[in-house]
Amino acid sequence: MKIVEGGVVAPIGYKAAGLRAGIKPSATKKDMAMIWSEAPAVCAGTFTKNVVKAAPVFWDKKIITEEETVQAIVINSGIANACTGQEGIENCRKEALTVGRCLGIAPEKVLVASTGVIGAQLVMDVIQKGIEDLSQILSDGPEAADDAANAILTTDTHKKEIAVTVELDGKTVTIGGMCKGAGMIHPNMGTMLAFVTSDVSVEKTTLQEMLLEGVEDSFNMVSVDGDTSTNDSCLVLCNGMAGNRLLTKDSKGYENFKKALFYVLEYLAKQIAGDGEGCTRLFEVICRGAACKEDARIISKSVVCSSLTKAAVFGKDANWGRILCAMGYSGVVFDPEKVDITLCSEEEGSLTIVKDGIATDYSEEKATRILSGNPVQAILDIHAGDQTATAWGCDLTYEYVSINADYRS
Amino acid sequence: MKIVEGGVVAPIGYKAAGLRAGIKPSATKKDMAMIWSEAPAVCAGTFTKNVVKAAPVFWDKKIITEEETVQAIVINSGIANACTGQEGIENCRKEALTVGRCLGIAPEKVLVASTGVIGAQLVMDVIQKGIEDLSQILSDGPEAADDAANAILTTDTHKKEIAVTVELDGKTVTIGGMCKGAGMIHPNMGTMLAFVTSDVSVEKTTLQEMLLEGVEDSFNMVSVDGDTSTNDSCLVLCNGMAGNRLLTKDSKGYENFKKALFYVLEYLAKQIAGDGEGCTRLFEVICRGAACKEDARIISKSVVCSSLTKAAVFGKDANWGRILCAMGYSGVVFDPEKVDITLCSEEEGSLTIVKDGIATDYSEEKATRILSGNPVQAILDIHAGDQTATAWGCDLTYEYVSINADYRS
Repeated sequence: MKIVEGGVVAPIGYKAAGLRAGIKPSATKKDMAMIWSEAPAVCAGTFTKNVVKAAPVFWDKKIITEEETVQAIVINSGIANACTGQEGIENCRKEALTVGRCLGIAPEKVLVASTGVIGAQLVMDVIQKGIEDLSQILSDGPEAADDAANAILTTDTHKKEIAVTVELDGKTVTIGGMCKGAGMIHPNMGTMLAFVTSDVSVEKTTLQEMLLEGVEDSFNMVSVDGDTSTNDSCLVLCNGMAGNRLLTKDSKGYENFKKALFYVLEYLAKQIAGDGEGCTRLFEVICRGAACKEDARIISKSVVCSSLTKAAVFGKDANWGRILCAMGYSGVVFDPEKVDITLCSEEEGSLTIVKDGIATDYSEEKATRILSGNPVQAILDIHAGDQTATAWGCDLTYEYVSINADYRS
Repeated sequence: MKIVEGGVVAPIGYKAAGLRAGIKPSATKKDMAMIWSEAPAVCAGTFTKNVVKAAPVFWDKKIITEEETVQAIVINSGIANACTGQEGIENCRKEALTVGRCLGIAPEKVLVASTGVIGAQLVMDVIQKGIEDLSQILSDGPEAADDAANAILTTDTHKKEIAVTVELDGKTVTIGGMCKGAGMIHPNMGTMLAFVTSDVSVEKTTLQEMLLEGVEDSFNMVSVDGDTSTNDSCLVLCNGMAGNRLLTKDSKGYENFKKALFYVLEYLAKQIAGDGEGCTRLFEVICRGAACKEDARIISKSVVCSSLTKAAVFGKDANWGRILCAMGYSGVVFDPEKVDITLCSEEEGSLTIVKDGIATDYSEEKATRILSGNPVQAILDIHAGDQTATAWGCDLTYEYVSINADYRS
């Protein structure tokens, strides 16, 4: 596997674009993006489990269930098109019709996605003009992928994109991806918005299964603030233009491709955690020695979700009592007197601060130096088995409160 | 039912004391308290469901299971005596022995409670000197109850106490209570620490059942930061000195007494929410129209726990999308298109901002005025039945981050 440039346009046959249509109040920020595949692309998707689902989630779920392939995704930031009733659904249909007209495809070949303020309706003449302009400037150059990755952001501080290649039957297959995160991040099925493109030739059911498995260990292990959004969507398009033999579960290259896809999903998930609203550093929590994978997932996620632990990370305070407390209320039964906790950073190495549930005689100065790193890692060993899981979060800062006390103004 | 002065010493036969023993680094803050009942008191208790339990929780659970009555509670703040292994348990026993020696009772008649930093051991000579001094100054004056209520606080900004009287068989029965809250507050069985005294004559099993039912709608409906503490304990002592006929489930006065006890529990729970770490106002969320009580509880609690909603309350921003989003990920299935959301404050009255899942044409200015009140109330009607529940929380502020980024120093 090799990391390459180009984000979502790195695979063969994809174009993208991003521009400012005028949805966001800011006069300079891009707010619409488009991804286009020259050839019809097999598509898989995962969506929020929130009972309150945004209109685009309803639209996309229907398309992915009923259609074998799609060719375009149009995305806007600034307005989430959530809690918008029948008018919101109708606006999704209008978006798809406009994209179809501009690109010469049927509206059922178009997926839509939105992120931003909940409750407001899309201003359709702005959106439709945006779609017309996007269609004109679609390009397979890396700057087009950058524009698209920038246009989908809300309170994110930087774009999040990646591309990797992997060899399959002597063919080079490429996977590209971009996503946005920052707030209302506690994905339960996909993240706020993530888009992955590939030129691999793959069977639709195989792709969907791979995606479901992949999000469990990536996006579903990320939390910024414990709030599962109404718009969470992760969409994967695969147009087959790499020319490999159709990939199925029985293919020789299956594990290889899956590994590359999971790498992309995990990379994007970590980018979201590390750019959480107001955050100053990525907090990676690894639970080891669990009796089953699910226990390890629940414990590590409980710790990255703890407000008290997150504030302690911000304060570079090795307050391990809060970590052990968050493990304790996770719902998993374990023996507190068998727990070891180790802190690590790249610069300072590792330091075991708790052994058998009790503080070691560790140096507070070294602990503070480790907690000053980015990312900061905590390894929790519960000595109950051999299963491991990793969760990603971030610290809780003044800036998080500032961003969210007055998000709409 | 009548509200009276005197806190935990308001019922007949109780004395209390609070003083500075020297556990907290502060040179002025009180850090030890004692409650004493002249007559042996029937006792009930509820405790944290965290797998990681503090040593005093183990001690008290054992006493309450095995003993019919107790006579004293000794409490310290500053150190939680949690994650302290065998030495922590042994220190509970030493505390009980010292109290027993000073007051002339068996150690099994003594309950202990601690709150503060997790992981540190109690300094036993300081504690033992504190117990000796407390025993000397026990008093039934209201200032003694105040001293005790102050001594159990950590990051709380004010003491929390109440007393009420209720008539039973022509006798006046009194219930007093005090508690502490502020941080690591997301009780799952009782709160951080709450103590209730009464002179009622009551059967032990009746008292325990009443307490279990009462905490469900009071302490267990409060959240400051989603972190369930290792020390949560709610203890109730009833010494029978009011002279009423023994109260059982079949007594005529049962409902009357229960109502008074629940009032005390709810009052204390609201005090904790309204004095959450760094908070500027109490946030009360009422879910109405649920198919069952449990649905109403889950939905209202999900909203008071949402970081995004809490930050919006701090910012006086009527960001109803976040409320609806938090209802949606609560786990309860409901129809988002039937939801009404109304905001209320005492000064400004009420304002329906969402009707049938969509924003009404409400005045943002009036919404902001309502959100400037204290307490702020949100009423969520899901139109699925006739069950109601209330949860209490607070806003998320810069101060919360400040307090918790550097709690230990």
